[in-house]
Amino acid sequence: MSYQAPVKDMLFCMQELAGLEDVAKMPGFEDAGLETAQAVLEECARFNEGVIAPLNFEGDKNPGGWNQGKVSTAPGFKEAFKQYGDGGWQGLQHPSEFGGQGLPKTIGAACIEINNSANLSFALCPLLTDGAIEALLTAGTPEQQKLYLPKMISGEWTGTMNLTEPQAGSDLALVRSKAVPQGDGSFRISGQKIFITYGEHDMADNIVHLVLARTPTAPEGVKGISLFIVPKFLVGADGSLGKRNDVYCASIEHKLGIKASPTAVLVYGDDKGDVGPGAIGYLVGEENRGLEYMFIMMNAARFAVGVQGIAVAERAYQKAVEYARDRVQSRPVDGSQPGSAAIIHHPDVKRMLMTMRAYTEGCRAMAITAAAAYDASHHHPDPEVRKQNQAFYEFMVPLVKGYSTEMSLEVTSLGVQVHGGMGFIEETGAAQYYRDAKILTIYEGTTAIQANDLVGRKTARDGGQTAKAVARQIEATEAELARRDSVAARATLQRLKAAREAFLQVVEFVAGNVKARPNAVFAGSVPYLMLAGNVVAGWQLARALLVAEDRVKAGEQVDFMQAKIATARFYAEHLLAKAPGLRDSIVDGGDSVTALAADAF
Amino acid sequence: MSYQAPVKDMLFCMQELAGLEDVAKMPGFEDAGLETAQAVLEECARFNEGVIAPLNFEGDKNPGGWNQGKVSTAPGFKEAFKQYGDGGWQGLQHPSEFGGQGLPKTIGAACIEINNSANLSFALCPLLTDGAIEALLTAGTPEQQKLYLPKMISGEWTGTMNLTEPQAGSDLALVRSKAVPQGDGSFRISGQKIFITYGEHDMADNIVHLVLARTPTAPEGVKGISLFIVPKFLVGADGSLGKRNDVYCASIEHKLGIKASPTAVLVYGDDKGDVGPGAIGYLVGEENRGLEYMFIMMNAARFAVGVQGIAVAERAYQKAVEYARDRVQSRPVDGSQPGSAAIIHHPDVKRMLMTMRAYTEGCRAMAITAAAAYDASHHHPDPEVRKQNQAFYEFMVPLVKGYSTEMSLEVTSLGVQVHGGMGFIEETGAAQYYRDAKILTIYEGTTAIQANDLVGRKTARDGGQTAKAVARQIEATEAELARRDSVAARATLQRLKAAREAFLQVVEFVAGNVKARPNAVFAGSVPYLMLAGNVVAGWQLARALLVAEDRVKAGEQVDFMQAKIATARFYAEHLLAKAPGLRDSIVDGGDSVTALAADAF
Repeated sequence: MSYQAPVKDMLFCMQELAGLEDVAKMPGFEDAGLETAQAVLEECARFNEGVIAPLNFEGDKNPGGWNQGKVSTAPGFKEAFKQYGDGGWQGLQHPSEFGGQGLPKTIGAACIEINNSANLSFALCPLLTDGAIEALLTAGTPEQQKLYLPKMISGEWTGTMNLTEPQAGSDLALVRSKAVPQGDGSFRISGQKIFITYGEHDMADNIVHLVLARTPTAPEGVKGISLFIVPKFLVGADGSLGKRNDVYCASIEHKLGIKASPTAVLVYGDDKGDVGPGAIGYLVGEENRGLEYMFIMMNAARFAVGVQGIAVAERAYQKAVEYARDRVQSRPVDGSQPGSAAIIHHPDVKRMLMTMRAYTEGCRAMAITAAAAYDASHHHPDPEVRKQNQAFYEFMVPLVKGYSTEMSLEVTSLGVQVHGGMGFIEETGAAQYYRDAKILTIYEGTTAIQANDLVGRKTARDGGQTAKAVARQIEATEAELARRDSVAARATLQRLKAAREAFLQVVEFVAGNVKARPNAVFAGSVPYLMLAGNVVAGWQLARALLVAEDRVKAGEQVDFMQAKIATARFYAEHLLAKAPGLRDSIVDGGDSVTALAADAF
Repeated sequence: MSYQAPVKDMLFCMQELAGLEDVAKMPGFEDAGLETAQAVLEECARFNEGVIAPLNFEGDKNPGGWNQGKVSTAPGFKEAFKQYGDGGWQGLQHPSEFGGQGLPKTIGAACIEINNSANLSFALCPLLTDGAIEALLTAGTPEQQKLYLPKMISGEWTGTMNLTEPQAGSDLALVRSKAVPQGDGSFRISGQKIFITYGEHDMADNIVHLVLARTPTAPEGVKGISLFIVPKFLVGADGSLGKRNDVYCASIEHKLGIKASPTAVLVYGDDKGDVGPGAIGYLVGEENRGLEYMFIMMNAARFAVGVQGIAVAERAYQKAVEYARDRVQSRPVDGSQPGSAAIIHHPDVKRMLMTMRAYTEGCRAMAITAAAAYDASHHHPDPEVRKQNQAFYEFMVPLVKGYSTEMSLEVTSLGVQVHGGMGFIEETGAAQYYRDAKILTIYEGTTAIQANDLVGRKTARDGGQTAKAVARQIEATEAELARRDSVAARATLQRLKAAREAFLQVVEFVAGNVKARPNAVFAGSVPYLMLAGNVVAGWQLARALLVAEDRVKAGEQVDFMQAKIATARFYAEHLLAKAPGLRDSIVDGGDSVTALAADAF
């Protein structure tokens, strides 16, 4: 069950693909060069391997529970979260003025991966708290920021996102929770929220709920939703904790996976606190602009959920490799051994492990380069460069979220498969990753919601310009590959070119037909997302191959670089090779998706 | 949670694709025409919908357990199995001379699907018993057959397959269990067997274990394995139950899914019975030919496990459709409704449901046509026809097993996905199918083992002749499609042709390179299986489309037939479209699978 953070690969992605050196030249990031990255990652690895990862399996078996509105977390979680906060991990990417370390996302993304590989259930608490911090940083008043952020950044308090109601899942227009102004600047909140991750727990002194609700004068639909701070315990001007607010955990869910992360039903306004009926809440930003602010949290969280996909894939990969090295079954098909061999020597086991590895490394490269674009979009001195990077990053978010999580389903399934019958036994641990991963394609917006975002806001809105700019960058990589004479470069070029062309054809199809044939375009939205994610991840590995070939020639880190070349080529030949088929389905197959009437199913 | 057996589609497959009329002309099957099929399926549906299906969800939550060597099954299982036996379901496909009904597999396969859709965990008991019956029918002495078969066929006793030991999973050469002759014709068996489905339970009076073990003089490896009957209770010549044999259930596994089916660790020879040390066993057939006999069980079981994949996919599909009709979220992208609509109207939900439906119907058509070939291979009067059908059936077994179970992983995952956040909550029930399905790609030979069979015994051995014969049949269907002028037929033809050509190229690659480049060929073995299964299932749906177009013209069952046309076209455009990419990976990508050395992972 041991986990070793892939620090070397992460540093490779930062340095060689994401341009960490350039990030470290930007104002505010002067200390964030390779040395810092290496030091942070090694400490992060040490802490997570030693403290957080060992709690993962036990937490799944014994996840704590609900009792009379209180939720106890799994054994060791409370103590570990104290260490997490004390170690400064919650504040890693947040501003130093509120006690954070102000490191770039380029480094932060890798730390999030490590934390999630160690323990997906545990890591959700800081992940959601990060989102709440982002929202308050963007839309909170200076007083709100001063009151809440330092304690959240230190890990003393945690944060939640309260969007979903039973009738309002993906469709937030249906939110019904109410917020009635009290005349003193505060509001009384009532309603029921479901699926609230770490909505109640025993790991922090206070929980800062960010809640979507409607004021009495609000218009219908998404334009009438406001965002409120509802602390579990009211906070005095000096930061001291006061009365218990009227928010009550009615139950927690019995889930397929991530069992050690309590998923709460929260009831607001049932007079279960010390403040009378109605939870006391404070408006964040302007009235009726709640969805906009929530999207700030959501976008941070979506990227992080994509990283969760990479994280669980990495963990499943490591576990499968370990088993495949140990388990001895059957003779090699090439006759290279007279007796039974470790199964890692069998071609199909290698195929499964290579698939897991290639997906994971490809998506990691995609996520870390996207993170660098985020950093540049906020910190680069040139506004034009900021703008370009913003567009690139926004295009990447649905890919990182959608593709990395979908691939994690395949990877964790292969992880079970490598174990054979043992994989199906819970004691082995491989099944947990399979169960845990399944939430990733659902929460913070299902894959379909990501795909709608990709089609609508990220492709159709600018007529495919950002997508085409990405394709041009890929073409530049193809040109470099074409100058190499290695077998690996040639094979990679062939598949990358075909995949990029398929991607471009789909972009043209989407941009050109979204108005006239919306059903046909949206019928292909998820396949488009999968194709785009596939191409971008494969592209990043192709860039990695170019670097790695140079390093091998120079005699640097030869084993690592040769493995990178092999992985990149595998990605091209086995995963990028799917792209033309997807294009055919999307461009020609829209009508057959919607041909059947609803009552004919 | 309700389940409705797809009787109409099953009858369509039998009648229009599998040639049930021809089956009913074969000696022994004279009563097995459409009327019989319909009556049997309707009764099967009634029984399983009413009695077996309602036990599925509760069995998962409350699967019974182990206590001091005894295993209690889930609530209602014992009573339901009594009804199953009394209803004659265990004997459906077995010879009337032992009390069975002697129906063709063409009909039996559909009944197995219904039983497994109703309850995968429950259905495993009859499934394994079927396998044990087959083995005794083939290799048992007349006395053994007379002693054991009537009670097994009546459902009074059940059967098991005891292959696996901790060190011997896929690799049966490593079996160590011992069988020492006692001089009286009996043997004393000792050893440990794991993963024994229904190895111990409370649903039957006796359990007939079929056990692989080695005699003292046996050669090493698979050529030294013999098969033994080891009854839980010794059986007198009059069929009466005697002493408790020395086979003891040491524990049952805590599994990811199929929780209500007890998976036992069985210890033989630990002096825990009434017979002294060593379980008393009886040789089946000849010494050292045990593997051969076990393969009879395995081949029956492999086909049935493929049907399990179809069954769980069908159940997941029905559940997803039900939810998608009920759940109201968001406006349709085409503006066809002013407010939020049932999610079944959203194109991506339709894409998911169509994918689930197309896979399920395609694999069902494949399995039922394969079953008809089995029937012809045993019952057709012409030996040449028998031989051709035998070759076709044997080629189909790894496809039915491998492809139908792999697709069930995708389908049950989509089933959860359609439910959004609710899918991740165990109470919803969709997650159970996702968990249950994962065993199907593992037991009775992993997908890789099926793929080895497809490459080695089914393709390389005859130089690809059987595979090419299948391709020629597909070409004949293409020719028929080419004579149609409908959009659906044209679209289907385009993808079927490309997929069949891809399949043929892979067959040439496999047959041509398996000796010289075994690693490269076996690196592509599972993708080859997936391609072959995909092409065959898509071909069957293309045949279905031809029939359905004719029926629509004739005004017969128009709604059903139009849905079939839409499903076939969807299959072609979205699933067959994957075939050329798979070909590229297999033919060009073999080297990159095995490039990384074992210690470089």
